[in-house]
Amino acid sequence: MKRVLLTGATGFVGRNAIAPLLARGYDVHAVTSRSTPSSVSGVTWHRADLLDATKAAALCNDVRPTSLLHFAWMVEHGAFWNAPQNLDWTAASLQLLRAFADAGGRRAVLAGTCAEYLWEGEERCAEQRTPLRPNRLYGVAKNALHSVASAFANEGDLEIGWGRLFFLYGPHEDPRRLVPAIILAALQHRPVATTDGRVIRDFMHVADAADAFVALLDSDVTGAVNIASGEERTIRQVIEAIAEKFEPPPEVLWGAQPTRIGEPAKLVADVTRLRDEVGWSPQFSFEERLSETIEWWREQVGVPAMVPSV
Amino acid sequence: MKRVLLTGATGFVGRNAIAPLLARGYDVHAVTSRSTPSSVSGVTWHRADLLDATKAAALCNDVRPTSLLHFAWMVEHGAFWNAPQNLDWTAASLQLLRAFADAGGRRAVLAGTCAEYLWEGEERCAEQRTPLRPNRLYGVAKNALHSVASAFANEGDLEIGWGRLFFLYGPHEDPRRLVPAIILAALQHRPVATTDGRVIRDFMHVADAADAFVALLDSDVTGAVNIASGEERTIRQVIEAIAEKFEPPPEVLWGAQPTRIGEPAKLVADVTRLRDEVGWSPQFSFEERLSETIEWWREQVGVPAMVPSV
Repeated sequence: MKRVLLTGATGFVGRNAIAPLLARGYDVHAVTSRSTPSSVSGVTWHRADLLDATKAAALCNDVRPTSLLHFAWMVEHGAFWNAPQNLDWTAASLQLLRAFADAGGRRAVLAGTCAEYLWEGEERCAEQRTPLRPNRLYGVAKNALHSVASAFANEGDLEIGWGRLFFLYGPHEDPRRLVPAIILAALQHRPVATTDGRVIRDFMHVADAADAFVALLDSDVTGAVNIASGEERTIRQVIEAIAEKFEPPPEVLWGAQPTRIGEPAKLVADVTRLRDEVGWSPQFSFEERLSETIEWWREQVGVPAMVPSV
Repeated sequence: MKRVLLTGATGFVGRNAIAPLLARGYDVHAVTSRSTPSSVSGVTWHRADLLDATKAAALCNDVRPTSLLHFAWMVEHGAFWNAPQNLDWTAASLQLLRAFADAGGRRAVLAGTCAEYLWEGEERCAEQRTPLRPNRLYGVAKNALHSVASAFANEGDLEIGWGRLFFLYGPHEDPRRLVPAIILAALQHRPVATTDGRVIRDFMHVADAADAFVALLDSDVTGAVNIASGEERTIRQVIEAIAEKFEPPPEVLWGAQPTRIGEPAKLVADVTRLRDEVGWSPQFSFEERLSETIEWWREQVGVPAMVPSV
């Protein structure tokens, strides 16, 4: 019996992990600090604040999961890069991992980030080749967590997989981020002010990312694995791909915003490990996933705001 | 007014930090999880378990220290290298640092270790040159803590100093460790079984280490600083230096124990930063400190065991 404790289960990535976990036969115990969604067969919801180590330990002792899929972190748009809460979540993650192992847990997969890599040059980021040199607190904290978690696993019976996420898009994304900002501007017939769009990034649909994470959990691969598309796109190409799906297309003001200083020219994953070792590859094209995402946002905007009756 | 929160204040190093802190004009708030020693002028004792983040935060809010000198960790002889408690202390240290900063703290100095360095070759370990490649959980955890603490400090008003300890000896050392084991064997007229003694190490008296830590705290030096003697001695030289102080000298069985696999040939600190930037240098020679240490152990052995009256 595979029983998984899924943290951050109402978050951007975590919410998408539930269906693939069920599909692979996991008994899913989903944790959130927010109010718990209504029950679905095969999913047991737990409301707990994982920043409280006592509660995290009690949860592990109650559930006795064999597997841990840990997404919970402080990810507030813009703020998370340098937020002091990165320390709290590093601490909480270490405490959760300890409690999980003490309660008999055997395999944990945690969310890492492309921000752990040295951002320099035109090479793809590869797990076993690119230097780890995070330059912001978020990346430093994730990298530190990975190093301690791995060394801890080496001392015991625990296996650790570490999925490094690159750039995501999809339903429930913060509307201030690139993809939803362009879609919402197009839906609302507003012009889009952007940079020259020349930097190259690796975009993946969040449901694919969650599915790949579950594949990693369900494998016996250990260590860091890039969870990414491996596809190179300039920001300009992403914006144009969205704009083309609207008639008339939104007006895009290229170069209206400066490219941030220190912004790397290219951030794309080498996905050899994900494809060949984990055995995961996407079932849908970027175009298909983008169309789905636009439809989702169209529905959100279409839903009338709740106005209290007077 | 300089007010310091001193953790691990009844431990091997921490207990030696109290006198130098008082000498430099600090209002000392000493924390221990054990029973608190009797009061000394200028020292306020607090009994608290820092593994409980709530208690650590309450302590910082009560004391409102300007400075933090953090020694508390799991350091049980032999066990600490791979103990799962290294995760607990990494978490607790991050939480303490957060609470300290939130309560207005400005400068923190934490205890690191030579086990953070790559142990290879004949070069001295230098803070800005030797690669950081710890290979056991203790060193990994300390290195991870340092990286997160430094990145956190870079985002705010906090200064972080990180003292890397090498090999210590002195009063209250665990009697299973090299220096006390040799002294106790000599005092008790037992032969000493040891390795061939060829590896080279950097030994420092614990009171010097604590004094150097306080000098680092009282400076404005940030980042990693080796807290060490910078003096090269083979284990054979250390044992012989002890043996010479006894008449008759103890019988030493060289080579009776194997050198551990993976034991590095040389571990000696480059102490340029400590000497030139912190401005600290020892006031006593190795010979003087060793004689003091032997006297201390002689007194311990000389004190009759407490036998309950019947």
